[in-house]
Amino acid sequence: MTQQSSIFRAATEIAKLDIFAEDAEAARQRAAWSGAIAPGWDIVGNANGGYLLAIAARALAAALVRPDPVTISAHYFHPGQPGDVTIETQVLKEGRRFSSGTATLLSKGRALLGCIGTFGDLTEVSGPEIIDQGPPEMPDPGDCLPVVATDTFPPPFMGKIELRLHPEDGQFLLGKRTGQALMRGWFRLRDGEPADTIALLCAADAFPPTAFNADFPVAWTPTIELTVHVRARPAPGWLRCTFATHFVTGGFLEEDGEIWDSTGRLVAQSRQLALVPRG
Amino acid sequence: MTQQSSIFRAATEIAKLDIFAEDAEAARQRAAWSGAIAPGWDIVGNANGGYLLAIAARALAAALVRPDPVTISAHYFHPGQPGDVTIETQVLKEGRRFSSGTATLLSKGRALLGCIGTFGDLTEVSGPEIIDQGPPEMPDPGDCLPVVATDTFPPPFMGKIELRLHPEDGQFLLGKRTGQALMRGWFRLRDGEPADTIALLCAADAFPPTAFNADFPVAWTPTIELTVHVRARPAPGWLRCTFATHFVTGGFLEEDGEIWDSTGRLVAQSRQLALVPRG
Repeated sequence: MTQQSSIFRAATEIAKLDIFAEDAEAARQRAAWSGAIAPGWDIVGNANGGYLLAIAARALAAALVRPDPVTISAHYFHPGQPGDVTIETQVLKEGRRFSSGTATLLSKGRALLGCIGTFGDLTEVSGPEIIDQGPPEMPDPGDCLPVVATDTFPPPFMGKIELRLHPEDGQFLLGKRTGQALMRGWFRLRDGEPADTIALLCAADAFPPTAFNADFPVAWTPTIELTVHVRARPAPGWLRCTFATHFVTGGFLEEDGEIWDSTGRLVAQSRQLALVPRG
Repeated sequence: MTQQSSIFRAATEIAKLDIFAEDAEAARQRAAWSGAIAPGWDIVGNANGGYLLAIAARALAAALVRPDPVTISAHYFHPGQPGDVTIETQVLKEGRRFSSGTATLLSKGRALLGCIGTFGDLTEVSGPEIIDQGPPEMPDPGDCLPVVATDTFPPPFMGKIELRLHPEDGQFLLGKRTGQALMRGWFRLRDGEPADTIALLCAADAFPPTAFNADFPVAWTPTIELTVHVRARPAPGWLRCTFATHFVTGGFLEEDGEIWDSTGRLVAQSRQLALVPRG
C-alpha cells in the first residue's frame, strides 16, 4: 500500500461523445458520454447499483462542470452486465453555487438507470454543526469481520472494495441473524485509493442488505431508488458506515445510511427504497 | 363539510399538449402538459414546493399511465409564482408493476424544478409489516395549534390546507423554541377533500421547517431536494405527520418525515435536503 491505485477511478472513467452536437447551445444542454461496466463489480452477475450510479454521476459531474454530487437520486430499471455503456446527460439548471441535471445510463440502447442530481464544489464547507448523534461505535477494522469475494456469496464485488462488518451484524455470514435490521461496518477502496465524493455513492450501496439481519423471510431486496446526500469530501482512510431499516410495509422497505469519515465527520446520508420480493 | 370539495385537485389539474408529436413512438416517450400555479399556495410570494411537485407528479402519472408515485425526487431550481406552467415528461422505463420517468416544470420557459419518479398502482399492497415504532403520539387535532393563513407569517398557503401543530412544537408561533429540531402535527386538505397519493407530496412539504424549533440562528431553509416514498393510499381523515432533523453540517440539513393515516398506517416517508443560509 505504498502506492495509490485507482481501481475505482478507472472503473468509472467516462469520455464525451460527439453526438447531439447540432449547435453549441444544444451541445451544452444535452450530451452523451461513453463508459464501461468493468468486470468484477457484480453481485451474482449484476453490477452493484452504487457502482452503476457512480458511472452516471461521473458523466453528470462532467456535464455540469461541478465535481461533487450534493444530492443525487437514481431509479433502477434493469440490471447491468459488464460491457460498454452510454450516458445521456441533460443540464436543467446552472446556478452560482449548484448546477442540476439528469443522466440516463444505457447499455445496448436500454436504460439501466435514470438519475437526477444537484452538483457543487464541496472543497470548503462551512456553517453551524449540530448533530444528534456521532458516528456508530464499532471495533477497529482489524477486529471486524472481513467480507471476502467468492463466486456466489459474498459476491465478486467484494473483491473490488474492502468491507469489514461489525462483529454483531456480520453474524449472518455464519447463518445467524441478530433480529435487528441493521448493518454496520467499515468501507474503503482497495490499495489505498482515496474515496472521492463519487466513491461515496458506491459506499452507500456496498453493504449486505439490512434484511439479512431481520426477522422476516427475505433474502435479496432489489433497489428501486437510491438517494445520496453528500455533506463533505471524505478524509483518507476507512469510512464508518451504518444502515438501518425501520419500516417494512406494503411490499417495500427503506434503508437509511450514514457514512462518516476517519476524522469523525458525517460525509454522506443515504436512503434507498427496496422491494420486498413477494413470497 | 357535508360535501367534498376539490380545491387541491383543481389546483393541480393538467392537460396534454399536442407538441412533441412528430411520430407516435416519440409522442409516447416525450410529452408536454399544461397546468397552472394557482394563487394562494405561496409562502411569502413563492409557491409551496410540495404543491409544485404535485403538479409535476400529475403530469408524470398521466405520462406513465400509473396513478401512484411510489418514489419521486424533486430538485428545486427557482421559486414559482402563480400563472401558467408547462410540464415536459419523458418516459424512461415501462415495467410490469412500475414505470419511471422524469418531469420538468417550466414557467415562462424557465425550469422551476426537475423530478424523477417511479409510479405504480398502490390500490392493493401486501407483504410483511414490520415497524420499529408506530405513529407519533399527539393530542387530537382539536387540542393542537391551528396554523392560520396571514399575508406574511404564517403564509397564505396555510389557507389552502389545514394544519394543527403539536402543542409543544407549535410554541415557536409564540416566539418560543423547544430546542429540538422536530415538527409534529396533523394535515388534511380543506373541506373534506380526500388526500390521494399525490396530495401526500404536498403534505411532505407543508409543515414549518424543523429549524424553527432548533437552537441555531436559522430562519428559512430553502429546499434543494425532496424525496417522497409513498407506501400506501391514505384512508380519509387527518394525516399524522412528524418531521425531524438530526444533522446540520457543512451548510446543509436534512428533514426526515413520516406520514401516517387515520388508520395508523404509514403511508409515506420523506426526506429533504435543505440549505442553511449563510449568516
